[in-house]
Amino acid sequence: MTSKYKDVYIASVGTVVGPYEHEGPLAKRFDKYYDDMYFGTDSLESAEVKLVNDSIDIALRKAKKEKSDIDLYIAGDLQNQIAASCYAAGKIERPFLGIYSACATNTEAMLLAANFIESKNCDNVLISVSSHNMVAEKQFRNPTEYGAPKPSTATFTATGGASSLLTNKKSKVRIESSTIGTPIDMNQTDPLDMGSVMAPAAAHTINRHLTDLGRTIDDYDLILTGDLGLYGKEILIDFMQDEYGIDISKKYNDCGVILYDLDNQKEVQAGGSGPVCSALVVYSDIIKKLEKKELKRVLYVATGALFNPTMVFQKENILSIAHAVSLESVE
Amino acid sequence: MTSKYKDVYIASVGTVVGPYEHEGPLAKRFDKYYDDMYFGTDSLESAEVKLVNDSIDIALRKAKKEKSDIDLYIAGDLQNQIAASCYAAGKIERPFLGIYSACATNTEAMLLAANFIESKNCDNVLISVSSHNMVAEKQFRNPTEYGAPKPSTATFTATGGASSLLTNKKSKVRIESSTIGTPIDMNQTDPLDMGSVMAPAAAHTINRHLTDLGRTIDDYDLILTGDLGLYGKEILIDFMQDEYGIDISKKYNDCGVILYDLDNQKEVQAGGSGPVCSALVVYSDIIKKLEKKELKRVLYVATGALFNPTMVFQKENILSIAHAVSLESVE
Repeated sequence: MTSKYKDVYIASVGTVVGPYEHEGPLAKRFDKYYDDMYFGTDSLESAEVKLVNDSIDIALRKAKKEKSDIDLYIAGDLQNQIAASCYAAGKIERPFLGIYSACATNTEAMLLAANFIESKNCDNVLISVSSHNMVAEKQFRNPTEYGAPKPSTATFTATGGASSLLTNKKSKVRIESSTIGTPIDMNQTDPLDMGSVMAPAAAHTINRHLTDLGRTIDDYDLILTGDLGLYGKEILIDFMQDEYGIDISKKYNDCGVILYDLDNQKEVQAGGSGPVCSALVVYSDIIKKLEKKELKRVLYVATGALFNPTMVFQKENILSIAHAVSLESVE
Repeated sequence: MTSKYKDVYIASVGTVVGPYEHEGPLAKRFDKYYDDMYFGTDSLESAEVKLVNDSIDIALRKAKKEKSDIDLYIAGDLQNQIAASCYAAGKIERPFLGIYSACATNTEAMLLAANFIESKNCDNVLISVSSHNMVAEKQFRNPTEYGAPKPSTATFTATGGASSLLTNKKSKVRIESSTIGTPIDMNQTDPLDMGSVMAPAAAHTINRHLTDLGRTIDDYDLILTGDLGLYGKEILIDFMQDEYGIDISKKYNDCGVILYDLDNQKEVQAGGSGPVCSALVVYSDIIKKLEKKELKRVLYVATGALFNPTMVFQKENILSIAHAVSLESVE
């Protein structure tokens, strides 16, 4: 389902990362970083809440807004019952909608916020996503001991919090359209090869977006997927060509590949993942290029794998989904 | 945050329940029931997915619609990573947004759907919620053995799937307004007394709704909370009086108390809970009374506790939230 928007703008963003992300190529572009994985809290789960709270404080400060200016807060994360988002929402004390689309959560938040702003129900909507590498390892891979060998197709859950304030007041970057994705089931069952699971969902959403709007990829300067990683990225290029006859290879990249230095940060294997992965790349790098008009229009396609460990243990397939937003430099 | 809607209608509903719910006072009003807890599937988690799928089939059949008529599907549940909703969405193959507000999920789904319909982005939005008693016991109370004694304040997670099709085509019941709730933290930590945790959130949302619309409770025939249970219900009556000076006692009831026969179904303790609890009561009973004009306007306030077991073990407070929708008989 594709919607167009006239007056939805990005007022500000806030990004906070852990040590691994701060060793990567985007290190200097993040607003804040921590050297350890606890950030002064006494549990990994609370540490993730702190990342969200920090990113909110930064986004609001940059926009010169107070919490009371927020009409609506929308957030989601990977913790069971999206606990990181709920506890962050508890500190903001504003109307809150919890959402979940795995690593596609950030574009779900953006398009929901855009719909509330475009329909004039809200002036200012704050959105957040987060993930924490060790929270995800503990929750999704337990009881496999931490540090057990993984195949090269595995991705590395990024540690970070990312928030942005969306508004009806003109800024340098706007959300001009969005496409809500459809769940895809390709009979895949390997949780250590998410790139293969998610690439078909990204392809389906990109094709749907272009078809619904009567556009081609020439209408975009960049197609950017969420966290397909090294192998998923190649699969998407092939899949778009074979399934839809569209060559995206010349203007395509993946946030999971951009976030880390894959040649030197070997522990990340095929690249970054987690809901915050694409948000960190888009907020720290892509939006700045749109502000400077180095990019004019970007199709940001966050990708998510829909499953939980219980379903995988029970041999159910892993489904996938991708939601897209088109970001545009404002004249 | 409160929004009004002009043209959002309930086209049809579908309700499917387990054996405990079919022993309750609403037994004959549900569309379908099962005598066991597996429904022909081989796991409790897949059984919950089946409840959702069944309720969707019924809602679509009643509305004489096909899956292809659905513009958007919105769903949420209590399984980690809302797996029941994701796997149900995988079978529908339509654009999907996953959401989570614990037991307040159904009103979050309704108000999001209403916003998409009112803004003319969608004609038909399908929404679902579900819960399964044994999935919830396994997930939230493990490793406490099943059947361990619980205090009388504990509620009983309802087993059921509930779906409804919302549309812009006139029907006998409409969604006329909604209020998005704010998370409330009252320093409570007992997961076996959710009524006390959630009552202040319900009070906050009811007061916000009335204030935003310049209404009093005289504008409603019934105020209906989600799953506060016997004790939470009393707390809400007192809290509304003490905090806001509003006497709701004469036109107030709670779905958790309505769903079961509390005198004879002793195992449910203080009443029903789970996202499906309020949806089952509203869809099987309240909407029919609105259709027959026995009720003219009902404020349906689903209530949710925001936490997960890890956060409770780590001695974090349990937060709560309540989202309200106003349902109205159409002339």
